[in-house]
Amino acid sequence: MKLNIALLAGDGIGPEVIDQAVKVSNAIAKKFNHEINWRPALTGAAAIDAVGEPYPDETHEICASSDAVLFGAIGHPRFDNDPSAKVRPEQGLLKMRKKLGLFANVRPTFTFPSLLDKSPLKRERIEGTDLVFLRELTGGIYFGEKGRREEGETAFDNCVYTRAEVQRLAKKGFELAMTRGKKLCCVDKANVLETSRLWRETVQAMEKDYPEVEVAYEFVDAVAMRLVQWPNSYDVLITENLFGDILTDEASVISGSMGLMPSASLGADIGLFEPIHGSYPQATGLNIANPMATVLSAAMMFENFGLQAEGKAIRDAVNEALNKGIVTEDLADGGKAYGTSEVGDWLAENI
Amino acid sequence: MKLNIALLAGDGIGPEVIDQAVKVSNAIAKKFNHEINWRPALTGAAAIDAVGEPYPDETHEICASSDAVLFGAIGHPRFDNDPSAKVRPEQGLLKMRKKLGLFANVRPTFTFPSLLDKSPLKRERIEGTDLVFLRELTGGIYFGEKGRREEGETAFDNCVYTRAEVQRLAKKGFELAMTRGKKLCCVDKANVLETSRLWRETVQAMEKDYPEVEVAYEFVDAVAMRLVQWPNSYDVLITENLFGDILTDEASVISGSMGLMPSASLGADIGLFEPIHGSYPQATGLNIANPMATVLSAAMMFENFGLQAEGKAIRDAVNEALNKGIVTEDLADGGKAYGTSEVGDWLAENI
Ligand SMILES: CC(C)[C@H](C(=O)O)[C@@H](O)C(=O)O
Ligand SMILES: CC(C)[C@H](C(=O)O)[C@@H](O)C(=O)O
Repeated sequence: MKLNIALLAGDGIGPEVIDQAVKVSNAIAKKFNHEINWRPALTGAAAIDAVGEPYPDETHEICASSDAVLFGAIGHPRFDNDPSAKVRPEQGLLKMRKKLGLFANVRPTFTFPSLLDKSPLKRERIEGTDLVFLRELTGGIYFGEKGRREEGETAFDNCVYTRAEVQRLAKKGFELAMTRGKKLCCVDKANVLETSRLWRETVQAMEKDYPEVEVAYEFVDAVAMRLVQWPNSYDVLITENLFGDILTDEASVISGSMGLMPSASLGADIGLFEPIHGSYPQATGLNIANPMATVLSAAMMFENFGLQAEGKAIRDAVNEALNKGIVTEDLADGGKAYGTSEVGDWLAENI
Repeated sequence: MKLNIALLAGDGIGPEVIDQAVKVSNAIAKKFNHEINWRPALTGAAAIDAVGEPYPDETHEICASSDAVLFGAIGHPRFDNDPSAKVRPEQGLLKMRKKLGLFANVRPTFTFPSLLDKSPLKRERIEGTDLVFLRELTGGIYFGEKGRREEGETAFDNCVYTRAEVQRLAKKGFELAMTRGKKLCCVDKANVLETSRLWRETVQAMEKDYPEVEVAYEFVDAVAMRLVQWPNSYDVLITENLFGDILTDEASVISGSMGLMPSASLGADIGLFEPIHGSYPQATGLNIANPMATVLSAAMMFENFGLQAEGKAIRDAVNEALNKGIVTEDLADGGKAYGTSEVGDWLAENI
């Protein structure tokens, strides 16, 4: 296969971890006879510094004309705690999601047997956890009308969803459930919100098309509880943008190994793949960041092209590295800590 | 003191646990020379059955003319999973909050040394946890305009906040922090929402009036993570209605003893006190529900009247019961399980 991949390293540790995913992907390309054309582009604080814009038009053109986007991380401390900053890296992120039509954020949460004790949760609560969130990513209160009235004394944010938006996300949810445990949980707040009632009735109407999928409807507050009580009771969860933001971050704690958690954002045409962790500014340039989440995001990318064997080869290499202790300091547990690039090299060599 | 207390037992196990709180409160009244006039009133599914309304006007009049409201639980399975039901118990709850002006929901989360192992979280993560959420309860997306457009194909919910609403909640937060660890965390999503930016700027402007309070601003997704990673790093958290709904339920898992967690909802005039657990329909009438959360809610009620010794007497009795194993089956751990009313009797006798 010939693949054009936009490469958005971003800020902080982004460039370092992206480098390792590139190495590993190149090793995959060599082994499986693919050709990858990497197309680097600016984003985040780096793009603001260079061209005054967190998601410049040139970057969008590169992304839109590629087969996928591999993304590092964005965010820089100088933009935090300043709600009035005019240009902010996050705006670039939201603009990118919207312009690329990435309406489904896929976030798997799973445990690694060798790392079970890293979790803040007790082992018996998390053993066997293997769930996936599908978060709607281009609608809801993130993109509704917002502003001020009464001379700034009143603020408002409008949450809007159309049936079509719910359907396309739910469809992905049902399809994903069919390839897994055949359980789907629709997370909403239908006892209070009209948008949630639209979500619930839309999903209810789709149930008949997937008779094998067992569907449950749970309120977001109940899920926030059960997710830490019995995470292994879930399979696929679908939810709207803001609930998904909160719950996927909560879920990321379960494995105790945030440095290992990949994600994908999918649309009609193109997918974007990125680690769930942030730009970790304190670690920038120190060669200590764990590259595995980004490497596993590359695995999701290959799998999304239908290249299952390629994805599996990456996952196997990561598992072997974990078993052999070829890990960065966050997982070293007093043992030898390898550098970001050493872990990347080892993975690439063991593909 | 002469106290008029509206008594809203509600549904499911509500009446059983409320009975115990009444017994214990009467014991307090006797010991400390107060006079309590209990004023029972209908609410929830019970009120829908009786008068077709979950929060009837007569109930409101009783509440509004009392010094406080002691509340059990509402909710009945026959209203669940039916988003189209015309009258629902939850509507009564929201109406009650709004009409009584209960704008601040106070939810403490603390651990009981003897029950640390009940938590799904590891002991070292939760030891020393003693945090309080102040959730805004009468504004935001719960009460904004909501509805459908385009023949039902589009749904919307509007989230609205005024500066005055934020100020009165934040004021309670600062004041509470001054009586405790002097740390306040403002939870918002100021990187996306205009209402959150109003929250943040309003709290920032109040900082100078409470120079001793250390204020932090955190995004709701980050708090959803940190709450399960390091709950003992928080003191007082303030947040808007929907974030509070999600996060307080998440936080309730920390102690592992939901049957022990009380809450208060405060307004300008009157306070409402209730356990955080629900109506637990499966246990109705079985005399197995844990009454301690409701009993501790009565303690919060006395404390809110400024009757600290009375509150402490209740807390001491509960602690002694826990130490002596005078507990319901949820806490019995294979040992003897006492009935709901036996626990209530024991507590009343040991005041
Ligand atoms: C940075 C922020 C705007 C973003 C979001 O809320 O979507 C982030 O939290 C995420 O989950 O990707
Ligand atoms: C029942 C529901 C409307 C309510 C809420 O969302 O406020 C409940 O979850 C709560 O937290 O008291």
